[in-house]
Amino acid sequence: MAGGEGKRFWPLSSREKPKQFLTLTGDKSLIRETVDRVLPLIPIERIFVVTVERYRDETLRHIPELPEENLVLEPEGKNTAPCIAYGTLKIEKKAGEAVVVVLPADHAVGDDQGFRDSIKFAAQTASVRLADGKFPIITLGVTPTSPETGYGYIKAGKDVVESSERFKAFNVKRFSEKPDLETALGFLKEGGYYWNSGVFVWKTSSILSEFAEIIPEWHTKFDALSKELYRPSEKSAAADFYGSIKAGSIDKLILEHSSHTAVVPVSFPWSDVGSWKALDEYLRDGEDENVTRGDVISIGSSGCLAIGGERVIAIVGLKDIVVVDSGDGILVLDKERSQDVRLVTEELEKRLKDS
Amino acid sequence: MAGGEGKRFWPLSSREKPKQFLTLTGDKSLIRETVDRVLPLIPIERIFVVTVERYRDETLRHIPELPEENLVLEPEGKNTAPCIAYGTLKIEKKAGEAVVVVLPADHAVGDDQGFRDSIKFAAQTASVRLADGKFPIITLGVTPTSPETGYGYIKAGKDVVESSERFKAFNVKRFSEKPDLETALGFLKEGGYYWNSGVFVWKTSSILSEFAEIIPEWHTKFDALSKELYRPSEKSAAADFYGSIKAGSIDKLILEHSSHTAVVPVSFPWSDVGSWKALDEYLRDGEDENVTRGDVISIGSSGCLAIGGERVIAIVGLKDIVVVDSGDGILVLDKERSQDVRLVTEELEKRLKDS
Repeated sequence: MAGGEGKRFWPLSSREKPKQFLTLTGDKSLIRETVDRVLPLIPIERIFVVTVERYRDETLRHIPELPEENLVLEPEGKNTAPCIAYGTLKIEKKAGEAVVVVLPADHAVGDDQGFRDSIKFAAQTASVRLADGKFPIITLGVTPTSPETGYGYIKAGKDVVESSERFKAFNVKRFSEKPDLETALGFLKEGGYYWNSGVFVWKTSSILSEFAEIIPEWHTKFDALSKELYRPSEKSAAADFYGSIKAGSIDKLILEHSSHTAVVPVSFPWSDVGSWKALDEYLRDGEDENVTRGDVISIGSSGCLAIGGERVIAIVGLKDIVVVDSGDGILVLDKERSQDVRLVTEELEKRLKDS
Repeated sequence: MAGGEGKRFWPLSSREKPKQFLTLTGDKSLIRETVDRVLPLIPIERIFVVTVERYRDETLRHIPELPEENLVLEPEGKNTAPCIAYGTLKIEKKAGEAVVVVLPADHAVGDDQGFRDSIKFAAQTASVRLADGKFPIITLGVTPTSPETGYGYIKAGKDVVESSERFKAFNVKRFSEKPDLETALGFLKEGGYYWNSGVFVWKTSSILSEFAEIIPEWHTKFDALSKELYRPSEKSAAADFYGSIKAGSIDKLILEHSSHTAVVPVSFPWSDVGSWKALDEYLRDGEDENVTRGDVISIGSSGCLAIGGERVIAIVGLKDIVVVDSGDGILVLDKERSQDVRLVTEELEKRLKDS
């Protein structure tokens, strides 16, 4: 899933270059890291990238070896549910029944091998029948390290669906939306709660059954779309499908209503990298005074995130400030105001319209 | 006087481009503003610019109409006393006895006409005999608007040397160095204290007499230097003179020891623009949320000084922060730490040495 328009990383990101194409956590773009993370397990021929048409070329620049027929182009971004439906139909048409691992292209993972081990376990579990004969709809759940209010939480039930030496899959008792701080603290105290990582594993037939059961008005349209896939008429069929459905996340539209959900708890370092503050937290070593990239001179500053461009950045006497220099502009931000970066991009868009 | 090496305005200033050449307070560089401020009163043929050799070309770029023989090139910067001695000898050699107005090239003045009126009065007063038959050594004293700790103060005496409808010249009771805050508050409460503006007015013969009386070991060298002025041998004579004297300010070496000093109180807006904080204070209108130059988007920020370069600067949730973008780098600074900019330039110089 690589269709996000992320405006929260201005001035590095832009409408033309959203977060998945940025190099934020390592030496490579997030989308490239996502692909490289699974390549030892899944050959490129079996990797499908769903994005919107606008990002076609940029996506291929980052994954030049991607077979072009594996590039799934949405007519418009409508959140994860349509993206997953379309991607699943493409995979099903090409491969028939298959286990699918759904990955956001713009998250950070701190342990690639641990990540692969966990999705390998989840992929095996996806083929283990539940009591009612169906197969599980699996989400990787990250063991919380802090009472984050920016993540959805999954409460694990008591039933063990499958277990190995290292992993267990539990039935899901409840999906909870982003909690307030008090609620999040309660979750951590109670235990058995996991962050919803947005990484899903299931059989094609399992998730299509869920669509059929929970939003049948979508499912009735799948055949019409599936018939045209990998043909010149695919684009207009996809446009018809997207034009006839509402936007929505897979969590809200399917998972929260499904009775076959399971969670595989994992404990690798993970972040959805949802803001400059989240990036700072992910990159920060406990002992770091500041997190810096590029040429940064710090004089009496702490808690800062400074990302340089072509020139030196000097930060003097600052606390908890984000400084980012890019070709598009310079951002100086109180870290706690990271959400307000969108106000900057809104202002810039307004200017473009007015000019 | 245009020889300053000011490192306090990095990244706008550099060793190659010190403060006098920067455009900080208006549309023109400080040195150009200084010249334009007095041009209605003093033709360019009678303006002398003293600077160090390194800044010769840059000075002429800013004042292309300056007669080249009026450009006085110091072999090295040794503060204001040698600068004034050398400049005075040049003027005396060319014009004989004259009234000299000494101006720092890197200060800001908010009322050009008021400034000219005050130096006109001071120039007249410079030719009014004191009780002992000597002529006054005049400093313009700015009426304090706040208990600044960054300025020297002049305590006016009771004797009126000269007065007009608008101006008065008093004898000086005492020069005080930069005070601490408590002392400065005491000065303001007591009254009769003025900021030392660094603008001096006197007859050539008056200041040369003071040199003769107070530092005769300099004065004995004046003849040797004066003999070579405006000749090819001037450069080596100046090098001999500068090589044989210590550095020092005119205030410390002469004024504090002179018994002929006078002060002309003035009340135009003035600043020595000694730091980013001082610039912010000088430019700030009481109602300004932020002081900005160039393309700046402010979201919930106040008390900031933001100076843009070629790209937009966004400041989000900041208080009392200085942000400056230039070709040389980006500075983000707590306004109260303005003095620490020199630590940045020291670090940059150290790097240059190490590389």
